[in-house]
Amino acid sequence: MPRTKAKAGEFKRSPCPVANTLDVIGDKWSLLVIRDLFAGKTIYSEFQVSPEAIPTNILANRLTRLIEHGLVEKSAYQERPVRYAYTLTQKGRELGPVLLEMVKWGEKYFPGSKAMMKK
Amino acid sequence: MPRTKAKAGEFKRSPCPVANTLDVIGDKWSLLVIRDLFAGKTIYSEFQVSPEAIPTNILANRLTRLIEHGLVEKSAYQERPVRYAYTLTQKGRELGPVLLEMVKWGEKYFPGSKAMMKK
Repeated sequence: MPRTKAKAGEFKRSPCPVANTLDVIGDKWSLLVIRDLFAGKTIYSEFQVSPEAIPTNILANRLTRLIEHGLVEKSAYQERPVRYAYTLTQKGRELGPVLLEMVKWGEKYFPGSKAMMKK
Repeated sequence: MPRTKAKAGEFKRSPCPVANTLDVIGDKWSLLVIRDLFAGKTIYSEFQVSPEAIPTNILANRLTRLIEHGLVEKSAYQERPVRYAYTLTQKGRELGPVLLEMVKWGEKYFPGSKAMMKK
């Protein structure tokens, strides 16, 4: 993907807030992980039983990216072996309205689809 | 990407409206094309001067997909050679609230970013 860093100054693609948001969550999986976090899931095994059956490597990649972007934080809930729990930060929780608008649109245009997150 | 068609019945990945929505607009470009359509752009040359400098092949692919999903329609505005103008359908326009929530989040978390669509 071509970058327009020179043109866009400090922004990755452009100064558009939508473009910048899509650089963080514009893929088929990130918002599903965020949806699961909103639903109270915190550990790998919980994310993996979601109906989309996210592959482990994609889950690991997306959680790492979401942490790097400050949307998710992790904390050890067990030692030897260490295991981590993941939760949304304030920045991540503020994506709630984006998700809710997708729920509304999806429920309208995919009849029979059913929201899994709290509304 | 593994498909879970057997498990999910008539849905591509799951009965979740967010997952189904992401199957249509979950990439880094589709919502930028929709943003441009909201801003009144209708023809290739107008989309291509947006600051993200969308590559022509990606623009063509995304417009085709958006038409297939019923979010965009095209009509010839010139014959010999035929040229098309693209506009949002009602279904496409109803993604406005999703975009607006991304604008709000992006403007908050990417200081200096500036909305290009009408609010």
